[in-house]
Formats: sequence, C-alpha cells, structure tokens
Amino acid sequence: MNYFVIVDVTLRKGIADPEGSTIERALPALGFTGVTNVHAGKSFRFEVEAENEGAALEKATSLGERLLSNPVIEDASARIGDR
Amino acid sequence: MNYFVIVDVTLRKGIADPEGSTIERALPALGFTGVTNVHAGKSFRFEVEAENEGAALEKATSLGERLLSNPVIEDASARIGDR
Repeated sequence: MNYFVIVDVTLRKGIADPEGSTIERALPALGFTGVTNVHAGKSFRFEVEAENEGAALEKATSLGERLLSNPVIEDASARIGDR
Repeated sequence: MNYFVIVDVTLRKGIADPEGSTIERALPALGFTGVTNVHAGKSFRFEVEAENEGAALEKATSLGERLLSNPVIEDASARIGDR
C-alpha cells in the first residue's frame, strides 16, 4: 500500500538560524508585532510503498536521516500526513 | 497568550520542483525503492502573541502569505503546533 509521508527537517537547538533571524528582524517593518522565536526548516512530502504504517514511517525516517538532512546540524522527523 | 504556530510553504500544483525530482532520482542509488512523488517545501516555526487560537492562526496565515511565501508559485498554510 502507498502511504503519504511528511518528513520535517529542523535545525538542532543551538545551531545558528540566520534565515529565521532575518525574518524576525523584518517583521516590524511589515507591521507584524508579537512574533518571536522564528525558525526556518524544510519539509519533504512523498509516497512510500510499504506493508503498513509503521514500515512506511521507518523507511521515511531512515530516508530523512540519510538523504534529506545533515544529522550534524539537523533533526529529521517523519509523520503520516493527509494529502 | 503565546501560541506556537507552524507555517508550511509548498509549491503549487504544476510548478516545477527540481529539488524533489533530484531527490527522487537519487533514491535508488541509496537503496530506497517504492518512494514516489517527492515534493520539497519549507516550514517556519514561531510564537505568536494573540488573544486566542483563531487570532494567532489568522496572523500567521497573513504573515505566511505576505512574507514567507511567493503566492505566485507557493501555497502557505498555518497550523497550531506542539512545541
């Protein structure tokens, strides 16, 4: 069966996030106040052929760690998504 | 109150996704089979100060459309996240 999976890749705690900082700095000029702690990340959506949900998530997690993220500075987590 | 919000930015249907295609092409060489329809996107996590969840989501959606995405080629959707 085909499962729709989303892998979220986020920077690990303590790793500099210049994209997030830049966005945060730009907000007041656009009239947005009260927005803090901005963090930028990546997400990957794909379909995985697997026997069950657990196997699909396992495959997606492995793919996230080996191909989609840099484990030195990033965390990858997989979840089943709705299309 | 502060709400933790996640904005997902994805490419609109029909827009070329070279990052996703490249990942899909690289998968068999790494031993991953049965993975199809790979799409790359961005995600932004931040805290919004708002009166209630609805107001926080509204602010985040507006921010996503005006600052975090290019509405010509991308869709932005906001959701309340767990930290």
